[in-house]
Amino acid sequence: MTNHDSTRPGRLRRAPENLLSAEQLAATPAQRRGFLRGAFAAASAALTAGAVRAQQADDPAIVNLPPHALALGQPVALEGYGHPSKFEANLQRRQSPGLTPTRQASVSFAPLQGLFGIVTPSGLHFERHHQGWWDIDPSQHRLMVNGSDEQMLKRPMVFTMDELMRLPSVSRFHFIECGANTGMEWGNVAVPTVQYTHGMLSCSEFTGVRLIDVLNMCGFDAKRARFVLAEGGDGSAMTRTIPIELVTSGQVLLAYGQNGEMLRPENGYPLRLVVPGVQGVSWVKWLRRIEVGDQPYATKDEDIHYVDLMPDGQHRQYTSIQEVKSVVTTPSGGQILLDKGFYNISGLAWSGRGKIAKVDVSVDGGQNWKPARLETPVLDRCLSRFNLPWTWDGKPALVMSRATDETGHVQPTYRQLREVRGRRSIYHNNSIQTWLVQESGEVKNVQLS
Amino acid sequence: MTNHDSTRPGRLRRAPENLLSAEQLAATPAQRRGFLRGAFAAASAALTAGAVRAQQADDPAIVNLPPHALALGQPVALEGYGHPSKFEANLQRRQSPGLTPTRQASVSFAPLQGLFGIVTPSGLHFERHHQGWWDIDPSQHRLMVNGSDEQMLKRPMVFTMDELMRLPSVSRFHFIECGANTGMEWGNVAVPTVQYTHGMLSCSEFTGVRLIDVLNMCGFDAKRARFVLAEGGDGSAMTRTIPIELVTSGQVLLAYGQNGEMLRPENGYPLRLVVPGVQGVSWVKWLRRIEVGDQPYATKDEDIHYVDLMPDGQHRQYTSIQEVKSVVTTPSGGQILLDKGFYNISGLAWSGRGKIAKVDVSVDGGQNWKPARLETPVLDRCLSRFNLPWTWDGKPALVMSRATDETGHVQPTYRQLREVRGRRSIYHNNSIQTWLVQESGEVKNVQLS
Repeated sequence: MTNHDSTRPGRLRRAPENLLSAEQLAATPAQRRGFLRGAFAAASAALTAGAVRAQQADDPAIVNLPPHALALGQPVALEGYGHPSKFEANLQRRQSPGLTPTRQASVSFAPLQGLFGIVTPSGLHFERHHQGWWDIDPSQHRLMVNGSDEQMLKRPMVFTMDELMRLPSVSRFHFIECGANTGMEWGNVAVPTVQYTHGMLSCSEFTGVRLIDVLNMCGFDAKRARFVLAEGGDGSAMTRTIPIELVTSGQVLLAYGQNGEMLRPENGYPLRLVVPGVQGVSWVKWLRRIEVGDQPYATKDEDIHYVDLMPDGQHRQYTSIQEVKSVVTTPSGGQILLDKGFYNISGLAWSGRGKIAKVDVSVDGGQNWKPARLETPVLDRCLSRFNLPWTWDGKPALVMSRATDETGHVQPTYRQLREVRGRRSIYHNNSIQTWLVQESGEVKNVQLS
Repeated sequence: MTNHDSTRPGRLRRAPENLLSAEQLAATPAQRRGFLRGAFAAASAALTAGAVRAQQADDPAIVNLPPHALALGQPVALEGYGHPSKFEANLQRRQSPGLTPTRQASVSFAPLQGLFGIVTPSGLHFERHHQGWWDIDPSQHRLMVNGSDEQMLKRPMVFTMDELMRLPSVSRFHFIECGANTGMEWGNVAVPTVQYTHGMLSCSEFTGVRLIDVLNMCGFDAKRARFVLAEGGDGSAMTRTIPIELVTSGQVLLAYGQNGEMLRPENGYPLRLVVPGVQGVSWVKWLRRIEVGDQPYATKDEDIHYVDLMPDGQHRQYTSIQEVKSVVTTPSGGQILLDKGFYNISGLAWSGRGKIAKVDVSVDGGQNWKPARLETPVLDRCLSRFNLPWTWDGKPALVMSRATDETGHVQPTYRQLREVRGRRSIYHNNSIQTWLVQESGEVKNVQLS
């Protein structure tokens, strides 16, 4: 049935076909036996690494094979749930030292410099807590849905997780970005790596129930409702106002699933709000209540945090959409190019207003731009991965990316952004990032004036 | 700047705004103070759970709040790499007891009954090893690329991982299914759960280099090349023949990334082949060598394993494409419906020939079919998630799904499949799966004759 010619040199290495017993070998078709015979003397003894190692001095064919080619490895289902390689232990989410007084009300950043594609592994998803995270028993968790008055929502209801998970479900890929991502850069603080400049950014496949389906079950007043309030169950009781249009369009989800499994505890297990395109603080974690109302709620995290300080001293409020943005993750700050020659420039682009239309890349500080290739699929309010081949000539290079979304919004330079918004803000910085590749190969964060 | 009216009942719960200091509170706009004053007496003392619990007897407003609403939780970046909730500990990949003599040459199944969407968490990705897994040091790993003779490939090369990771990279979502998935069902063995019937199936976003780009670098003979051999680095030295058309079309990848991070050790770290649409055994793990040739290689895992035993006693070889298939994961074997009423029927569909075009669902053993809703995005040679609302009337129901792919292939019934292929095979069973929902609500695996 095959045309295999085992005598031809180089066709197959002298492989240890060491799962064959002598009986199985005898039953092998004749034309394969010549090939196998030579291997068998070594291979039949190769059932343990020890036996093989004892033979190495005699059999030059198996000298210098690595241990993993010589012995049984680890079994399946070793712990039921797998872990990354020990050689990847340095790829971690990390807190910026001294950023906040406590680690319970702080941030950990995703290591974008070591990630591929668009999915963020849930174990490396960025964190932002306001009073620390808890592992809440899902059998005890409840979601209350009510109106700001009795007419706003006719049938207030309390849902168990089991009840929510029986309802029609959807699965969608979306990015989540903290409104404060790249916030240090407003003050021209050159944070050293892309983990700290842009690492409050992650992307997952979320599964859950559309909030509009639940509000319809509860008989909400579609004519009067203008906002919903989402309230979290942790000690900070995070409360955020969401415009009703995002809900009635079917975009907002009551999510329990993330990247195929239940949400992780530090990302809101067992229930969080997903508000595609909107800053992460509105994706309320450990969600315990939804209220329908006709006015914005002006909660503490809308009044004194997550507001944009403008040059005239006023601040903008409810500026929730994460505008079009991109960043080159390779090469990026802290990395070293060991020699000139070919590199793959790679990065991420996203927009809270829709799909990414294109990403242009410059290696000369913005004088010339080339379109990068977008990896498929390009999805709505989702990270897009871009790639562009580059041959480095060994001279200093200024590497930048500039994204455009399907609504025509273009990522601004720092000069453009500051002309409108000054430099005293914290939130909603979507400027073009520049990495300087020095002649030494070391890559540094720089801001072009 | 806001219209907040804090006196309106039900607008905001009496929340512990306990991140405010007394000074910050004093600085809060006047119209909010009335609201805050009441909460503050309790909340300012609420900095530790102990203090709050001591107050509970006196303050009915905070009686019965769960612990996570009363105290600081866990900090960010607790271990650098996160883990699932302790309440999800039973969602594991599992080995079928007694399936194989050793766990090093065995299978673990992904728990499809508890997964959402299309991404399989890497910690729950199915495993199939032929001699156990190793955690190979990527700095020591090499890929050799050669030809079966000197003309077939002009410049044989050995690549380090660093060299491969500098090359142009692509990121794509694909399913991987073991050719033996659903193999027990050929013999009418009613395996109890979807984890064991269909759990040798997973789906990830893979990142890597297109094999064709590497072969072009090495100067392969595009006119003579008809096949490549892929060889793994573990003790089993898994070797598989891949038709050159899959390579030249750009589909086959030398992958190092999976779901955003490096491959997991048990799934081939640091390098595996990705052969979209083809059975998993050809996605060679711990990949150490690619050879270009003009004939199929007829290796042991192509001659004596992964062949299809036909009714006349002959076997089919090189039947590698995973044909169109689907399965309902909820409700599925072993699950219990606690009461009649609304349920979300959910499942997975896939085809090795392209995209899924539609999935029909029956709840009466195939007499009537309804089209399910496909979640977006629907991708080439990738899992697709389908959902369909269903109201269970409490009577016995036979739940089935039937997928059709974009090439027009339709998933067969067991009767149709056996008319052609008999019932003594192991591999490549893509029949329609039936789950019986009994009056008790218990769900069982059944085969319709």
